[in-house]
Amino acid sequence: MSGIYFDDLHIGQRFVTPGMTISAAQILDFARQYDPQPFHIDAEAAGRTEFGGLIASGFHTLSLSFSLFFRLNVFAAANLGSPGMEEIRWLKPLRPGDTIHAAAEVVALKPSQSKPDRGIVTMRHDTFNQDGALILTVTCLHRLKRRDT
Amino acid sequence: MSGIYFDDLHIGQRFVTPGMTISAAQILDFARQYDPQPFHIDAEAAGRTEFGGLIASGFHTLSLSFSLFFRLNVFAAANLGSPGMEEIRWLKPLRPGDTIHAAAEVVALKPSQSKPDRGIVTMRHDTFNQDGALILTVTCLHRLKRRDT
Repeated sequence: MSGIYFDDLHIGQRFVTPGMTISAAQILDFARQYDPQPFHIDAEAAGRTEFGGLIASGFHTLSLSFSLFFRLNVFAAANLGSPGMEEIRWLKPLRPGDTIHAAAEVVALKPSQSKPDRGIVTMRHDTFNQDGALILTVTCLHRLKRRDT
Repeated sequence: MSGIYFDDLHIGQRFVTPGMTISAAQILDFARQYDPQPFHIDAEAAGRTEFGGLIASGFHTLSLSFSLFFRLNVFAAANLGSPGMEEIRWLKPLRPGDTIHAAAEVVALKPSQSKPDRGIVTMRHDTFNQDGALILTVTCLHRLKRRDT
């Protein structure tokens, strides 16, 4: 078997993604479908809010951050999906033209008691903008296959 | 002022959305952009996984659920964005052709100590499929304007 499995991970292991620059068009496209609030879909109205201009939907920032992580393909062979997430914090807005990247760190590893072919890895996923500011943090559980099963 | 503000809410208050039917095309479109894992982007490969077929990205289910809630426009006048979410649980997959709806219930109300013009409402957001099965649950904080400020 190639790729990373549950047994190949250790606490403190860290994965860092490349950057991605987000355009106003992408922000508007996502928000019109999923989060049609004035500060996400209308630059002029957004300018009159305390955000001072257009900001991405938090669900967009979250999806973009995980898209960067999944495109690393570290879990390509082993991923069985996620049961859930904890402590999502949107700390700063994502604005048009921002370049974001993400870092994911292993914080816990728990083999399944009931299913010996898998385990749950808990990871902290942090998203940063071009100034190095942390804009989003979330703890995500990932269900991963074990080796040799 | 029209619409609902922080002061108009009470614990136990519940908002229920209309339904929305999700197609395979929508699932593929979202997943190819944000969550390109085999069980989200490739029906044939998905059929060989324990999911037994294509399932929506959890980030898609989450975004769809909140899109249904935001389209109720209950927070249209008062919403100042969300600081975060807790306890996201993906309990069952969202599959092509499923019709989902969401229900949101007020679980806590906390006026801001530092900013008298606003408060934080904690809401539990549940998403159900056409069989009435709970497929997603999450607790979300919403920052809302107060009346008369």
